[in-house]
Amino acid sequence: MRDSQRHRSGDLDSLPPAAGNGLLDRRALLGRGVLFAGAAATGVGSSLTGAAAEPLKDDPWSQTAGSISPAYERPSKYEQQRVNRILSNPNGEPRTSHARTPHHLLNGTITPNGLHFTIVHSGTPDIDPDKHRLVIHGLVRQPKLFTLETLSRYPMASITTFVECGGNSAPMFSNEAVQGTVQQIHGLCSCAEWTGVRLSTLLDECGVDPKAKWFVAEGADSLALSRSVPLTKAWDDALVALYQNGERIMPGNGYPMRLLLPAWQGNMNVKFLRRIQVSEGPAMSYYETRTYSQLLPNKKAYRFHFLNEVKSFITSPSHGMTLKGPGFYEITGIAYAATGRIAKVMVSADGGKSWAQAALQAPVIPKSFTRFRAPWNWNGSPAILQSRAWDEGGNVQPLRADFVAARGETQKPVTNPLGFPNQHYNSITSWGVDPSGQVKHVYA
Amino acid sequence: MRDSQRHRSGDLDSLPPAAGNGLLDRRALLGRGVLFAGAAATGVGSSLTGAAAEPLKDDPWSQTAGSISPAYERPSKYEQQRVNRILSNPNGEPRTSHARTPHHLLNGTITPNGLHFTIVHSGTPDIDPDKHRLVIHGLVRQPKLFTLETLSRYPMASITTFVECGGNSAPMFSNEAVQGTVQQIHGLCSCAEWTGVRLSTLLDECGVDPKAKWFVAEGADSLALSRSVPLTKAWDDALVALYQNGERIMPGNGYPMRLLLPAWQGNMNVKFLRRIQVSEGPAMSYYETRTYSQLLPNKKAYRFHFLNEVKSFITSPSHGMTLKGPGFYEITGIAYAATGRIAKVMVSADGGKSWAQAALQAPVIPKSFTRFRAPWNWNGSPAILQSRAWDEGGNVQPLRADFVAARGETQKPVTNPLGFPNQHYNSITSWGVDPSGQVKHVYA
Repeated sequence: MRDSQRHRSGDLDSLPPAAGNGLLDRRALLGRGVLFAGAAATGVGSSLTGAAAEPLKDDPWSQTAGSISPAYERPSKYEQQRVNRILSNPNGEPRTSHARTPHHLLNGTITPNGLHFTIVHSGTPDIDPDKHRLVIHGLVRQPKLFTLETLSRYPMASITTFVECGGNSAPMFSNEAVQGTVQQIHGLCSCAEWTGVRLSTLLDECGVDPKAKWFVAEGADSLALSRSVPLTKAWDDALVALYQNGERIMPGNGYPMRLLLPAWQGNMNVKFLRRIQVSEGPAMSYYETRTYSQLLPNKKAYRFHFLNEVKSFITSPSHGMTLKGPGFYEITGIAYAATGRIAKVMVSADGGKSWAQAALQAPVIPKSFTRFRAPWNWNGSPAILQSRAWDEGGNVQPLRADFVAARGETQKPVTNPLGFPNQHYNSITSWGVDPSGQVKHVYA
Repeated sequence: MRDSQRHRSGDLDSLPPAAGNGLLDRRALLGRGVLFAGAAATGVGSSLTGAAAEPLKDDPWSQTAGSISPAYERPSKYEQQRVNRILSNPNGEPRTSHARTPHHLLNGTITPNGLHFTIVHSGTPDIDPDKHRLVIHGLVRQPKLFTLETLSRYPMASITTFVECGGNSAPMFSNEAVQGTVQQIHGLCSCAEWTGVRLSTLLDECGVDPKAKWFVAEGADSLALSRSVPLTKAWDDALVALYQNGERIMPGNGYPMRLLLPAWQGNMNVKFLRRIQVSEGPAMSYYETRTYSQLLPNKKAYRFHFLNEVKSFITSPSHGMTLKGPGFYEITGIAYAATGRIAKVMVSADGGKSWAQAALQAPVIPKSFTRFRAPWNWNGSPAILQSRAWDEGGNVQPLRADFVAARGETQKPVTNPLGFPNQHYNSITSWGVDPSGQVKHVYA
């Protein structure tokens, strides 16, 4: 037998630990997964004995022809039942709507287009793409107007990057751990391959006045959401994005075009983009001076807060799940940083007393979700799972105590996870596992 | 003015050519796009003059609140009208169904889950994921049964890779150029990020007998589609895939699990996977001995044809499009190879007389779609656009004459692009542009 040549008596308990409370070496996950070979005790699959024939009987769906291929595939009805997007405004009242990415149901790094988070402050406009126009004006030599048809002739670029709302993870500002899933707490970030025309190409064609230092981007939604952006971002990597994971952008993500500012605060990635005004200074518009301001403990606020700084969280196991007894589990989650590539993710199973390095899914793309995985042998005793990320510049995800000292927290528990005004939480998330296997959000 | 510092009188005609008939240097597409700076003559956007205010008027959709965020985003109704998946069996007759990826409408490298190609030979079964089982048996020490729940505890891996039907591009075997779009001709290949459990992990746990050299994978569809696979592929990179671009696999792509054999003939990536029998030799099943055999000019056939060899095609401009007058266009398409990374794509605008190197979208991932782009200044005269790819091992996409000599062609034109029995076309596709701008499929 093949595996007996390597691990004659392999079982999980005999494997060398990488950190306390059952964390195993990440090399167990690479290549052939040497650690698992022969570890029959690892196996959570059921052994088949004499009754093996029983499960080989045909299920009902194998006894009849299946359904017709649709023009556009949708998830299985079983998955549609599982996906609850926690819509914050299901009746379309005149206020903001959120739809959150269910990270606990996903794996990999791409967020599928159906489940990319979306926030709209006055609903999703029903835009006729053949009539929509983008105008670039202001401090330019030649103002210009672009249609989807003319934009399609320009050179395109594709960037795989995350978009994260400044208000993502806002429940983490509470001074008591809000009991919410990873979707409720961290569901306002997603990652996709975006394709479009570099904003620098269009600006260069209009001819930017040397006096200009900013531009103001405005959407075609009914409140004409606008945000100011330093021109340096346009010269760096901003796109007028037309495609999301290959197809035209979803309505809730800005169809037919959005500004894409890789890894900058989500709200600045103006959807339904229709005007770019090149200017000397920022417009100090509503959403940059009120909603997306970060209040600080000293009663002041950051004037602007562009970057989504280095961050990670575990997506499984996570709040609301129940582990089915001791044994092997994979701890997995996502890490990302506006400042470049993720260099390292450490995982703890004992609330931060000891740490093991997680494996990173290749390729690691800058400003993009990076999937991390760590092998864990749960012995059935209480555990607290945490992750902590470093980017390639040496920036590290702050510990919670340090983050709270610098950025503050709210003074009472709030049961509605949508009610937090604070922005840009990037500290650590802790999931507590009790002996029954239940996983809950805790502070540690 | 910024751009006047670089190209005071820049226009497309003054730029250095990279190959005949208007192909420009790919470096025009990199970074700031230096070639385009100041080239007002490049611009296909409309200049705004005194009447500039007119297009800044609010469109109707900017004057009223928009729609509610749905639980699962779908494309705009305008895009739904554009996407015609060319379903081959819309009434669900008892035969094979195809749904083709509309590459001419897409950009980037990821195929969105709604538009991944799918072929089902007896319809898509309606599988209850909580009742579905995977059994591994045959030449193993311990046969085992796996549920979705138990599989979720195993170490996962993600692989971004293409899946291509052996019959993709079959119309190219005709001895007259079939008038079809890139979707009709090449729409049976797609690319996604797949996540699941390495088959090697599961096989190692069952303990494979050293005598075993193959395994037979079988689906839970009503015809129990089965294919034989050398065990070497399992030890290399095969997955039992559970996720497609982050979410659970689409029904048409094998929900709740499929075999994923990166870059091997699509039909071998058995959908609705329910049994793996480890064996000494291949089963010589129906789909490997009949449907997916490649007939050769000498009346023999390849016994097996696993690899999807190095290939590329231009997605835009392509058959059915009309160029709106001379000037700048981006030529773009996709390249891929079972043998590894794409190393180089060359593009011709004069039917292969001269070639310019295309820019490749980063990162270039092995066994994955690689998007290429080449800048082109069309002068309005007839042009024939072609692409040709090389992989990192030095394998090159064959010229059509060489391919036909080796693999044969059909002896009469066939109007139904679905009716070709031949497999694994990987030679060059030519799109002819006439002076009116119309683009048609031609042989050149």
